[in-house]
Amino acid sequence: MTQTGPRRIQNSGLDEESREQSQSSSTGMRLIVPLQGIVQGRGGLILGSVIPCAMFYLLQFYLKRRRSPPKPPQEQTSNPPSPTSSTSNLPELSRSASRSNLLLSRGSIVRPHVSARVHSIAKSNDSPYYIGLDRASEDPYDRVNNPNGVIQLGLAENRLTLDLIEKWITEKLNDSILGEEGLNVSGIATYQPFDGLMELKVAMAGFMSQVVGKSVSFDPSQIVLTSGATSAIEILCFALADQGNAFLIPAPYYPGFDRDMKWRTGVDLIPVHCRSSDNFTLTIPALDQAFNQARKRGQKVRGILLSNPSNPIGNLMTRETLFNLLDFAREKNIHIISDELFAASTFGEDEFISMAEILDSQDADKDRVHIVYGLSKDLSVPGFRVGVIYSYNESVLTVSKKMTRFSPVSAPTQRLVTSMLSDSIFIQEYLGRNLERLRCMYDLFVGGLKELGIGCVKTSGGLYCWVDMSGLIRPYHEKGELDLWEKMLNVGKINPTPGSCCHCIEPGWFRFCFTTLEKDDVRVVMERIRRVVETCKSPS
Amino acid sequence: MTQTGPRRIQNSGLDEESREQSQSSSTGMRLIVPLQGIVQGRGGLILGSVIPCAMFYLLQFYLKRRRSPPKPPQEQTSNPPSPTSSTSNLPELSRSASRSNLLLSRGSIVRPHVSARVHSIAKSNDSPYYIGLDRASEDPYDRVNNPNGVIQLGLAENRLTLDLIEKWITEKLNDSILGEEGLNVSGIATYQPFDGLMELKVAMAGFMSQVVGKSVSFDPSQIVLTSGATSAIEILCFALADQGNAFLIPAPYYPGFDRDMKWRTGVDLIPVHCRSSDNFTLTIPALDQAFNQARKRGQKVRGILLSNPSNPIGNLMTRETLFNLLDFAREKNIHIISDELFAASTFGEDEFISMAEILDSQDADKDRVHIVYGLSKDLSVPGFRVGVIYSYNESVLTVSKKMTRFSPVSAPTQRLVTSMLSDSIFIQEYLGRNLERLRCMYDLFVGGLKELGIGCVKTSGGLYCWVDMSGLIRPYHEKGELDLWEKMLNVGKINPTPGSCCHCIEPGWFRFCFTTLEKDDVRVVMERIRRVVETCKSPS
Repeated sequence: MTQTGPRRIQNSGLDEESREQSQSSSTGMRLIVPLQGIVQGRGGLILGSVIPCAMFYLLQFYLKRRRSPPKPPQEQTSNPPSPTSSTSNLPELSRSASRSNLLLSRGSIVRPHVSARVHSIAKSNDSPYYIGLDRASEDPYDRVNNPNGVIQLGLAENRLTLDLIEKWITEKLNDSILGEEGLNVSGIATYQPFDGLMELKVAMAGFMSQVVGKSVSFDPSQIVLTSGATSAIEILCFALADQGNAFLIPAPYYPGFDRDMKWRTGVDLIPVHCRSSDNFTLTIPALDQAFNQARKRGQKVRGILLSNPSNPIGNLMTRETLFNLLDFAREKNIHIISDELFAASTFGEDEFISMAEILDSQDADKDRVHIVYGLSKDLSVPGFRVGVIYSYNESVLTVSKKMTRFSPVSAPTQRLVTSMLSDSIFIQEYLGRNLERLRCMYDLFVGGLKELGIGCVKTSGGLYCWVDMSGLIRPYHEKGELDLWEKMLNVGKINPTPGSCCHCIEPGWFRFCFTTLEKDDVRVVMERIRRVVETCKSPS
Repeated sequence: MTQTGPRRIQNSGLDEESREQSQSSSTGMRLIVPLQGIVQGRGGLILGSVIPCAMFYLLQFYLKRRRSPPKPPQEQTSNPPSPTSSTSNLPELSRSASRSNLLLSRGSIVRPHVSARVHSIAKSNDSPYYIGLDRASEDPYDRVNNPNGVIQLGLAENRLTLDLIEKWITEKLNDSILGEEGLNVSGIATYQPFDGLMELKVAMAGFMSQVVGKSVSFDPSQIVLTSGATSAIEILCFALADQGNAFLIPAPYYPGFDRDMKWRTGVDLIPVHCRSSDNFTLTIPALDQAFNQARKRGQKVRGILLSNPSNPIGNLMTRETLFNLLDFAREKNIHIISDELFAASTFGEDEFISMAEILDSQDADKDRVHIVYGLSKDLSVPGFRVGVIYSYNESVLTVSKKMTRFSPVSAPTQRLVTSMLSDSIFIQEYLGRNLERLRCMYDLFVGGLKELGIGCVKTSGGLYCWVDMSGLIRPYHEKGELDLWEKMLNVGKINPTPGSCCHCIEPGWFRFCFTTLEKDDVRVVMERIRRVVETCKSPS
């Protein structure tokens, strides 16, 4: 069985190089082995080792020089021209004179610097999470047109209720943007407040109350709208922590946080490992230990980032846990960012409790709690890019509002969404039907896995399940997990997310997103998993 | 005449404090002056100075302590509770126990930290530029409903051609989003590439070619779409420079750059001062001097930020200047960010030359040029938040695309704009009519100023003019300029932008944006300016 995993494909340049290297080593060995025999015959053990080694080293050195590999572009660009170079008196030179000088010197192309941050960001996409996403989007499965394509199970996108969204937009688009009295062009074309229109904030507060239930109310003046929850989290991170500071984060966690929270802010994430023996729930002692270890290293912890419902586990935090977390945050004088992006996508038996509900019952500690929400998951409109910061802290609200100038929501979309969220009959129906379909799909998917002898953690919310495939990996290690993932991607043509991408400390767990599938697709996925399972069980 | 300028209002707390301080000084003086007489009578000059000074110091010290001012919140929050405090063993405590502990200690409220960056950003809005914008938006002039309101002349927003936009949206909204074959919901609701839909990139490239003219072509694959030009500039800044690095920027410059380029990136801007004697054009020797001074200070300059047409001057860069700038950038191995946001709003005699046209004629140096564009000014749709990075540099494009996850354009808006830009008949008509109206309004406005004896720099593009009011300020200094601005805001009820907000080195210049006005408003503005001019001329 030949595996041409994407990492191998990506590194084909490197592979060629190592192939070449191994060729040259074997050329060397053909020279060295007879020599070794000669030397050993006369000079004993030491000479017999030292001389061949030295020759081998010299040979390698010779081959290396002959190959003279091109410098990586990064290095090429990191040497600025000397300020005292021949063209440094440019302002005094005429344009044509300086131009001919430069054309002469152009043999050695001097490329302008880019920032060091660019290099670190450019490198950050070689995780299997991104590789898998790309592979599945380049060769997407389609029952009719591409039945051998890759089935995307790595993207938490909900397509189960898109028909309802489609129907609403088709019927209501004109009304929502043009209004009954015709278009007010100033309301969409001209500058609007970057942090969102008050009409949308009011509608959003209503929607959030409906989602959270139990008569928890949200104050529109505490809402800051952003271009997606991604921006909301980045802005909060920026507002709460300085470069080098850290957030504690229960792991396994959503792989995108490493990018969204760290790239531009320079903030660090410290995983607090949750284990299968605890059903992957967070414990305060684990949090405390991580906090203390950070402090011993001299690192300032500024907060905890929770995702509730958890991504990728799909479990919910109990009221008791939320109270304990608040106590912990108060005790350490740190913040809590509560990412509640899947609040309305909770289809299990457990009850979803928002941090807002906890704070409704007490006056203290509101200053340190910041909720992240958005419409990408619960309303199936990630293309709209509508995210929410809901904070109780005046300074954080003030700065977040200012930051939205870099991440605003387009006004036409705001008008559209305002109408959609204000249509209470539609929202009621949407939320109900969405839960039904989610529950149904979850049962179908998890049932299929069960038939294959594969178990999951009990999921109560989210668009995915957290699947235990540890029995299928060999070795019981991250390598075994990634080998299994490569098999699923290349042989099975399915793309779940390996647990190691989520910083899961136990190997062999995978996140399977099931809401981009249609019911019939589940059968295909299970058949593909079965094929992979068989290759794992058969003696190789 | 009483002036209650906004800065005075804002700083009323401070004013009270200084009033209190001056009261206590006068109390002190009442004690000290007689004492001084006594001492001088017997002890001569030295004792006569030293003793009263010492007593005065002690008195001030005493008064200061007695007043015991509250600590600023920043300080209050900067001391975390000691880790060894009574509640540090929280994980072992039961929730209720720890809660009661905390309720006891709640007398001294411990507020959570926010980042140091928050404090610096929160402070950054006390420039007259922002104060004026806020004042005019809180009390906006309306001919009928609020005839004594403030007329906004500080915002570069084009309302002259909004009727054409309104008509197009009203007629074409449904077609543009729903399409002829009905809505493809996957095309707007689900995840789309963060850096923009290829359809929009193609339409944008076509629009940009049309704007720049002279058969300059733009390659859609070099386009990255962002949520407004603001995000485009921030992303480029991040990609090209590291914290502490700097960009050279011809001054006077748009006040927003201080925020957009510096806030999150930690990058510095070095103004290269242009003078009225040069008609505020940029000279290479001035650039060279600023570059060398920065280097002497040990600061790395990573690029030049040009705005062409210039904001706030409104002049254009000649072909010769652009070539010289490229030579300079090559010589110093730095980048050029060319902000061409007003490219289609050039109504004067001078010809607009895009950096893209210059690069079309040569192969070299493309790597170091990055163009910023957008639809906020030239298509009068700032509410849509559509910005463009156009770069020739692969690394910069790659990273910019990744960064757009924080600053994407909403998909429904992308569909709308794609249709709009693809409607060549509409675009042709729009661009023509827009120029006509711009030119007409400019002539009207500048003519009005001329009648009042007020001159401007010759403007060729933009939505504003750069007005010389230096003859009206007293003293000839930034203070005089700001006094005049306060008079215009409070007496005249108009809000232009003072040159000092644009880092203009010569006092007395103002940017007047005239495209939010209707023709009739110009007369009102001129009348208000006349009133202010009269108060300046009358002996006070």
